Amino acid sequence: MRIAVLGTGSVGRRIADKLVELGHEVRMGSRSAGSEALREWLGEAGEGASGGTFAEAASAAELVFNCTAGVASLEALSEAGAGSLAGKVLVDVSNPLDFSKGMPPTLSVSSDDSLGERIQAAFPGAKVVKALNTINHQVMTDPARLPGAHNVFVCGDDEDAKAVVRGLLRAFGWAEEQIVDLGGISAARGTEMYLPLWLRLMGSLGTADFNIQIRVP
Amino acid sequence: MRIAVLGTGSVGRRIADKLVELGHEVRMGSRSAGSEALREWLGEAGEGASGGTFAEAASAAELVFNCTAGVASLEALSEAGAGSLAGKVLVDVSNPLDFSKGMPPTLSVSSDDSLGERIQAAFPGAKVVKALNTINHQVMTDPARLPGAHNVFVCGDDEDAKAVVRGLLRAFGWAEEQIVDLGGISAARGTEMYLPLWLRLMGSLGTADFNIQIRVP
Repeated sequence: MRIAVLGTGSVGRRIADKLVELGHEVRMGSRSAGSEALREWLGEAGEGASGGTFAEAASAAELVFNCTAGVASLEALSEAGAGSLAGKVLVDVSNPLDFSKGMPPTLSVSSDDSLGERIQAAFPGAKVVKALNTINHQVMTDPARLPGAHNVFVCGDDEDAKAVVRGLLRAFGWAEEQIVDLGGISAARGTEMYLPLWLRLMGSLGTADFNIQIRVP
Repeated sequence: MRIAVLGTGSVGRRIADKLVELGHEVRMGSRSAGSEALREWLGEAGEGASGGTFAEAASAAELVFNCTAGVASLEALSEAGAGSLAGKVLVDVSNPLDFSKGMPPTLSVSSDDSLGERIQAAFPGAKVVKALNTINHQVMTDPARLPGAHNVFVCGDDEDAKAVVRGLLRAFGWAEEQIVDLGGISAARGTEMYLPLWLRLMGSLGTADFNIQIRVP
């Protein structure tokens, strides 16, 4: 598949590397096509990897990953262009964390909203699926590094789009039983507001290399 | 120990029942000393159980559980009285869920604050420990009903108070390894903002009888 990965941070690079490894044609998008992070990734990435602006990456893609920082996501997606996102699955991995007031970060959306919903509202032609935002980048594409049937969450308003994302997650190594469908895109409120707990857990555990597993009787 | 349990809902009753079973002298506090919920509990509760107003329950207690609804907690604790809370461990089990706008509820505090912190600020003499608010009442006092080393979180500014609460949690059936200390009371932001995810999980799983287990490599 032709896939755009918007964002050159650790999340974007991890996901892009895995997609290249799986044989997809990956174009990483950056604010500037000549950015250092992008050049660095292109120097290491295998065959099937290319780079460009957000707009260049999104326009040719069949599916788009938003791996930009949450506070910059709406702007980055605007640069990608509503026309280039229309009709496509848009996997939103971002978190609305605002670090401008120091640590711990606050959330840039209130509890009756979410970044996932804002993105869906701003780009109604896109099929937004929120996924992977509750997990450290190492675990995203290598769930077997942690023991047990720990979980990844998906939500979105388009069932077909969620099925496509579930397929990608299975290719990343997630078993069907580990993938929990939380419903429509408004469930992004839940996975985004989990981040303050995730950050505290990272502090207590002394590592970001963890995840949670749901336990039922 | 003489323990006050403020709140006559399912959480208050579950915790009060367990404390009575463990041999504590439990006084359940209600807005009205003659409330139906309180009379009902007293009719079923064993020896060591008594009831009264929030003020009557808190004044005689050595330790206080706040099991009132989050939107009513500050008022209930004011009725209990700052003088009756001073110097005591105050276990805050409440969640700042606002159901007034329908389902799903919103949070009544913003992401740079928490109900746990507000309670600590309003009653500086109390030693507030946030605990058990991430778990359904059935699981609170019977963790063995779920498989695995699933987790309960504590946070608060007073180390001795947290040690007391850890002791109570162990008496409830939680193993030491299941109890995660998240740090100071500001970590209540994390455990309270987890609730929107908890509510979505309840919807997806079709039950409130679940919990999460942290997985590390």
